[in-house]
Amino acid sequence: MLPSELEHYLHTQIPLSQAMAVRVVSIADGAVVLSAPLAPNTNHHATVFGGSAAALAMLAAWSLLHTRLRAAGVSSRLVIQRSSVEYLRPMAGEFSARATLGAMPDWARFNAALARRRPARIAVQTVVEHAGEVAVRFTGEFVAVSDHNL
Amino acid sequence: MLPSELEHYLHTQIPLSQAMAVRVVSIADGAVVLSAPLAPNTNHHATVFGGSAAALAMLAAWSLLHTRLRAAGVSSRLVIQRSSVEYLRPMAGEFSARATLGAMPDWARFNAALARRRPARIAVQTVVEHAGEVAVRFTGEFVAVSDHNL
Repeated sequence: MLPSELEHYLHTQIPLSQAMAVRVVSIADGAVVLSAPLAPNTNHHATVFGGSAAALAMLAAWSLLHTRLRAAGVSSRLVIQRSSVEYLRPMAGEFSARATLGAMPDWARFNAALARRRPARIAVQTVVEHAGEVAVRFTGEFVAVSDHNL
Repeated sequence: MLPSELEHYLHTQIPLSQAMAVRVVSIADGAVVLSAPLAPNTNHHATVFGGSAAALAMLAAWSLLHTRLRAAGVSSRLVIQRSSVEYLRPMAGEFSARATLGAMPDWARFNAALARRRPARIAVQTVVEHAGEVAVRFTGEFVAVSDHNL
């Protein structure tokens, strides 16, 4: 999937991503990077609204799983179950979110559960940065259900 | 503070709240309730985007602390430090977020720290509902710093 395709998908399917002016920076097997400008995501301190930072992190995490599942030819419904977010420092400008998978056995287990048409759980870590510094750490736990179960 | 005043403040200071079409339903000493419609907050499953649900919950939590501090005549800078969110079920329409404080001693401790011009920490719980059912549980930990320290 090309970054432009994912960006179009996000903007049309999740309109808040368009309101946030989310850009897809890169898609690789191990990481998806999104970015957003400050203006539509600002708060009353002229820094990034915490809800925008968490939403960008979640979109990056979801996009990583979505693009990997598509590349593997798996059709599934992917839903977030739990998230935790640590806000380390304010961000006074453009910010980016890099989502990565944990240990690879997790991905193998996740795929094996999907192949058996069972709910498959996986955690994704996203780091949100501004000006080269980590500002927010996000962990999301997702569950995927094979479309054949729906 | 009137609901219309808080709503105007949120829409002008945090533009994402306007993009989400957030409404302030009620403000009381013990609870703030916000709501938002599905359309600007939808995802590709035609249910509420998890990032929107978490953002509405965070806005409600922040608004509860902000309005209480203003009512107490305290001027401070209020920042989120940590949040955790549980997604229990999808929401296929308008959703609302009710933020409440925990035990009252927490609020007393929080105010006492602020009065001493020290960073004051407090946790706020928000429940997000759709069609009368709890769909999302949010906990946010905030820190407030007296404006005199800035």
